[in-house]
Amino acid sequence: MAEKKKVCIVGSGNWGSAIAKIVGYNAARLDIFDSRVTMYVYEEIINGRKLTEIINEDHENIKYLPGHKIPSNVVAIPDLVESSKDADILIFVVPHQFIKNQCEALCGKIKPTAVGLSLIKGFDRAEGGGIDLISHIIQRYLNIEVNVLMGANLAGEVADEKFCETTIGCRSKEWGSILKNLIETDNFKVVVIDDVDTVEVCGALKNIVACGAGFADGLGYGDNTKSAIIRLGLMEMIKFAQTFYKSSQLGTFYESCGVADLITTCYGGRNRKVSEAFVKTGKCIEDLEKEILNGQKLQGPITAEEVNHMLKIKNMENEFPLFTAVYKICHGDLKPQLFIDEIRNHPEHIVKFSNL
Amino acid sequence: MAEKKKVCIVGSGNWGSAIAKIVGYNAARLDIFDSRVTMYVYEEIINGRKLTEIINEDHENIKYLPGHKIPSNVVAIPDLVESSKDADILIFVVPHQFIKNQCEALCGKIKPTAVGLSLIKGFDRAEGGGIDLISHIIQRYLNIEVNVLMGANLAGEVADEKFCETTIGCRSKEWGSILKNLIETDNFKVVVIDDVDTVEVCGALKNIVACGAGFADGLGYGDNTKSAIIRLGLMEMIKFAQTFYKSSQLGTFYESCGVADLITTCYGGRNRKVSEAFVKTGKCIEDLEKEILNGQKLQGPITAEEVNHMLKIKNMENEFPLFTAVYKICHGDLKPQLFIDEIRNHPEHIVKFSNL
Repeated sequence: MAEKKKVCIVGSGNWGSAIAKIVGYNAARLDIFDSRVTMYVYEEIINGRKLTEIINEDHENIKYLPGHKIPSNVVAIPDLVESSKDADILIFVVPHQFIKNQCEALCGKIKPTAVGLSLIKGFDRAEGGGIDLISHIIQRYLNIEVNVLMGANLAGEVADEKFCETTIGCRSKEWGSILKNLIETDNFKVVVIDDVDTVEVCGALKNIVACGAGFADGLGYGDNTKSAIIRLGLMEMIKFAQTFYKSSQLGTFYESCGVADLITTCYGGRNRKVSEAFVKTGKCIEDLEKEILNGQKLQGPITAEEVNHMLKIKNMENEFPLFTAVYKICHGDLKPQLFIDEIRNHPEHIVKFSNL
Repeated sequence: MAEKKKVCIVGSGNWGSAIAKIVGYNAARLDIFDSRVTMYVYEEIINGRKLTEIINEDHENIKYLPGHKIPSNVVAIPDLVESSKDADILIFVVPHQFIKNQCEALCGKIKPTAVGLSLIKGFDRAEGGGIDLISHIIQRYLNIEVNVLMGANLAGEVADEKFCETTIGCRSKEWGSILKNLIETDNFKVVVIDDVDTVEVCGALKNIVACGAGFADGLGYGDNTKSAIIRLGLMEMIKFAQTFYKSSQLGTFYESCGVADLITTCYGGRNRKVSEAFVKTGKCIEDLEKEILNGQKLQGPITAEEVNHMLKIKNMENEFPLFTAVYKICHGDLKPQLFIDEIRNHPEHIVKFSNL
């Protein structure tokens, strides 16, 4: 009999806590998993008590996911190495600016046979002017296979157990099936595909498009314009993936990580919300982050900047007019009122014949 | 010098009047078109005046598109044959239940070299249990090539000149270019593709999905669930097209007629709106059509029934659980509260590997 797989969740924010509900539930009921799930929690003092203590005693993350019980088999641990050392499956769900430091701390301290599952959205800047995927960074630091999970998954709605779907990118059939078992519930349906990099690229790029959708909302456009922006954004996402990740497949964009996450993010996400306020109030992004997001950084403008950095070096800005316009607007180089003018003559607007 | 192309718009409802604004504008400014555009208007008396008179004197369709000027080179004609007889391009934009009678009336009365452009959404039932595309019906009756135009085009927003896109399906490069010139403006961007049948299939099937989106709204689900429904609906649209139209191409669903129209319809369309009310009020579709749509028929439930008629005969209902559930709910055979249960174990929810 194979040993039971031990699971560690590295991270305990809003999304990490929502996924802990699911992982805890499945680890407790399925024989292939050790029912004890560890969760690395960055220690904070809330109303005079440690957050780890609150989670372990009251089974609720009152700071990041109040109102939801986390299963009691999920154990909060304030020490990163301690939480991860026995894990067969490491689920990474921290803001992407922390991942390098955490990987450094974990280096040589985890099981060499472990696999990773990254839920982190965003890119890092690579040496030489390109971009780096978060899963590749983890892979390099820890020398383990890293899979990814992305989808139309606003954390609050997942925690509320409202029906939705997600996509796991995984190159191994065996691990794909194990991860599906760990993550899937009746209300959280998993599709596993092997186009791993594209799944991750979708999760990062969608936030740029959501800024564009927010600008359009702020400017008073309707549903036709917004769906044109979503479509043109999707076409740039596809072009980006096919240009920089040669094995990328068109079908991946039809998965939850593609079109579905894009729709959810462009209607219900915070990049859209802040971008709408950006147009309506005339305030800068930083001030709005303080006001609306409690100081947390908005992912879309950062990703737009990283992407633009690469496109500029490669002299490809004109091939991605929507990404480029969002970058310029967030950066103060273009008035949001000129956004639509930048995509009006998009390279997409042509006569296309399938037999050409 | 080639003769200037004459254009006739067959229909003068909300969408017909919005497209008349665009076609009139382009016909007046572009040399390749005769500036006089005829519009067949079903005669009605509004406040004691004929509708054709109102359009020709006041240049406004006060019944179906109030508040918008129709260019004065668009001439309303109450006689169908008279309006169409000299046309090189016939734009069909009437409710689909009228098209057969109108084609019968036009048979042998139009230029044999004319081409059609159908903006009509919906299917007809074919002999032998299949479905018939409206463009195919027109083609058979009139023996002319019929192209189609479908896209994320809520008529009011198009008339307001808010930026959007559309898709023309056309098999001829020459005509594709002429039709693009006739239809495109700075705020209404056209992509021409040759996958004509798929463009039309998208325009019909999206209304079924929009009913599903409306049910989810009525049941209180959020953006995750809605985008899962849109995605699963899109996957059934693709499967439907690929099963019944062998040359159908995956890329077509990324055009405005595909994913973009689906998004617009599932957020801003009337099928969504009535379906939400259907769940919230418990009233039947017919009563809601009277209350909300002034007695006009909702397209989604009709299309769901036509599709189901075919799927049932072919024993394929289980392969299209979303289409089937929408049909059953509209037909009173399934409670809307059970909608999500019908798609929870969708055939899409599997481990897919691109190399299999």
